[in-house]
Amino acid sequence: MKSAIIINIGDELLSGHTVNTNASFISLKLYNAGIITSEIRVLPDTEDALLDIIAEVVGNFSTIIISGGLGPTHDDKTKSILCKFFGSELKFNDEIWDNIRSLFANRNIKISEINKEQALFPHNAKPLNNIYGTAPGIHYSAKGSEIFALPGVPTEMKAMITGHVLPFLVKSNKNYIVFRDINTYNIPESTLYEILSSYKEFPFGTEIAFLPKGYGVTVRIKAMGTDKELITHKVDSAVKIISSRIGNNIIGYNIEEPALRVYEILSERALTISFAESCTGGLVSKKITDIPGSSRVFKEGFITYSNDSKFKQLSVNPVTLSQNGAVSYETVDEMLDGLLAVTEADIVCAISGIAGPDGGTPEKPVGTIYIGCALRKNNKRTVKLHSVLGDRMSIRERSANKLFIQVIELLTK
Amino acid sequence: MKSAIIINIGDELLSGHTVNTNASFISLKLYNAGIITSEIRVLPDTEDALLDIIAEVVGNFSTIIISGGLGPTHDDKTKSILCKFFGSELKFNDEIWDNIRSLFANRNIKISEINKEQALFPHNAKPLNNIYGTAPGIHYSAKGSEIFALPGVPTEMKAMITGHVLPFLVKSNKNYIVFRDINTYNIPESTLYEILSSYKEFPFGTEIAFLPKGYGVTVRIKAMGTDKELITHKVDSAVKIISSRIGNNIIGYNIEEPALRVYEILSERALTISFAESCTGGLVSKKITDIPGSSRVFKEGFITYSNDSKFKQLSVNPVTLSQNGAVSYETVDEMLDGLLAVTEADIVCAISGIAGPDGGTPEKPVGTIYIGCALRKNNKRTVKLHSVLGDRMSIRERSANKLFIQVIELLTK
Repeated sequence: MKSAIIINIGDELLSGHTVNTNASFISLKLYNAGIITSEIRVLPDTEDALLDIIAEVVGNFSTIIISGGLGPTHDDKTKSILCKFFGSELKFNDEIWDNIRSLFANRNIKISEINKEQALFPHNAKPLNNIYGTAPGIHYSAKGSEIFALPGVPTEMKAMITGHVLPFLVKSNKNYIVFRDINTYNIPESTLYEILSSYKEFPFGTEIAFLPKGYGVTVRIKAMGTDKELITHKVDSAVKIISSRIGNNIIGYNIEEPALRVYEILSERALTISFAESCTGGLVSKKITDIPGSSRVFKEGFITYSNDSKFKQLSVNPVTLSQNGAVSYETVDEMLDGLLAVTEADIVCAISGIAGPDGGTPEKPVGTIYIGCALRKNNKRTVKLHSVLGDRMSIRERSANKLFIQVIELLTK
Repeated sequence: MKSAIIINIGDELLSGHTVNTNASFISLKLYNAGIITSEIRVLPDTEDALLDIIAEVVGNFSTIIISGGLGPTHDDKTKSILCKFFGSELKFNDEIWDNIRSLFANRNIKISEINKEQALFPHNAKPLNNIYGTAPGIHYSAKGSEIFALPGVPTEMKAMITGHVLPFLVKSNKNYIVFRDINTYNIPESTLYEILSSYKEFPFGTEIAFLPKGYGVTVRIKAMGTDKELITHKVDSAVKIISSRIGNNIIGYNIEEPALRVYEILSERALTISFAESCTGGLVSKKITDIPGSSRVFKEGFITYSNDSKFKQLSVNPVTLSQNGAVSYETVDEMLDGLLAVTEADIVCAISGIAGPDGGTPEKPVGTIYIGCALRKNNKRTVKLHSVLGDRMSIRERSANKLFIQVIELLTK
């Protein structure tokens, strides 16, 4: 029997209008609980597609997680298809009805008759309480498979995975997955591979993978087994050897985003940071404040999107702006001075660039980005020119990450 | 034969460490070109899984798009599996090698021997030039299927879809998909369904779908066919009728994000906006500046994350902060005053709340958010309390969207 399969139902996933963050949330939770996802499938909300896939997977995967198609409208077919497949009768469930009524009462909204249908529940399944919505989850056990049908709304699905599905699964799972990431930057994947090629058959029974990220390549060392201590030791040993071979250009370990490493360093050293953003328009500050507890290191930031704002908020000289342009070494250098003057932060960063799609010139094409970082204490500073490839979204994303990497270099090199 | 299937290869997608944005990018491009994606499958980079799926789909789907597994390292197996299946011989391709060499030369990086393998190309396939990376795409035609194998790195894949795959597919495709979204807020899905239930068998040969978004429910009206004008007319007629039944609580049509509607209104009226953000930490400004051309409406923003910053940058009275807290009607009201004083924007917005996971109290639990908007011209203003459910990420996301909806209400009601 294969391990886990995630099945996401919904035309909006297939039309590309919704990014499938549900699949990555579920698979990451499973992975951290030692359960490998063997496959993810996205299907339309048609009866045929649903019935086919359920027939295909029940008995072939030990864990089957279905999300989507549990809402109250005609394009929500998951419950009726499951009932058909498992021969379920629908019975009115008072607890579910109470939950639905209290949800509507709390939001001061009149309840619709159609919601009563959501309290009808299959007699041979277990309901999973929905704390954020009206559709309960459904748990069947059959042919050695555990089948969980969850709502597609992320908040509702997430609470059900954490509150019901994982606690159930970890009881019977004895497998562990241990991995450690070595997050590198400015080394091509092919070079990393050559550096590590003598380890093609990797020692210690670990596996190695190369994951290209927007800001660099991450080397992942992984081991699986039932003895958690043993596999942790194996992975740690491998990480030590590989890190020494890679040498510099490691920004951290097990960090999903460079911002997280900056947050760690600042927290350890009790330092604060502030940003003046132009082309990233708030993304840099957003990345730091994504982190719970970031208020310890981040007090304030400025989005000086226009020339006028760079002058008014950060006292960038209008002559500097007119002679060198907003995207220049000189402007970013003066943004740092201005930021040092208006904040009390220990470290200040400024970024100005051309994110596109318009605004590029032959001298300064789209993707031209200047990033500056300065330490208040000793006025050590770096202002660097970067050429970033991609569309507007990825240029902004990569530029923000390059800023954080520049901070890490300034603080650790 | 079914329409299109997208196959994404990569353990990092199955472990949940990478969100599958490639699938949504590809399927949206196909959808807009009139091609329906029937299925998305995510598979591990093992030889067996790859060989099985290729055998299953060739001849059954007219368009097959595979992404991932084309890199230079041992966990990149797509090319060799395709060669095995299609009986290809690898031949050294000078054009590909020239492209690889010039990419390395431009980046001033020494080329690795391993990259030479990337210039070996199957004799019975067409190469797709990679402008951002070393691995060319691969295009096979067999049994009525067009098979495209593309790199997994988003920037490289996107350029290949736009530059090679779509131009090829649209030549032979005669189908059109026309849809229009009615973006609603503050109406439950079940209520919308009841309002529209007389249209269960929907007129004009259109389909209707309900898409729950973080900020409300979107009603999508869709039609497909070969006569673009005809189906456009059908959809437009349906939208008109449905809109009149829904009445208020429509924030726009065909907008992916409330920020986009705000941008449209501001552009039309030549108005500017500025934000003072606390709990969203830059996300609101980021959402506006995601939009190309946003510099016309957005000049600057302030992220006043700490109390001190609210006082220093926006002159919020320390007594107000200590008596009412940073998350209060009074503080947000004074943030608006401060923002009106430091910017010249026509509309100012302020947001302060508790995004969690910590910081909640019985009186002000996590998810308590105050949002204020004010017009400079007539000092018309609204300050509202919102209770937002979810984790830190979704509270921030939803709060930012609620701010934009509040702006739309202020400007249009």
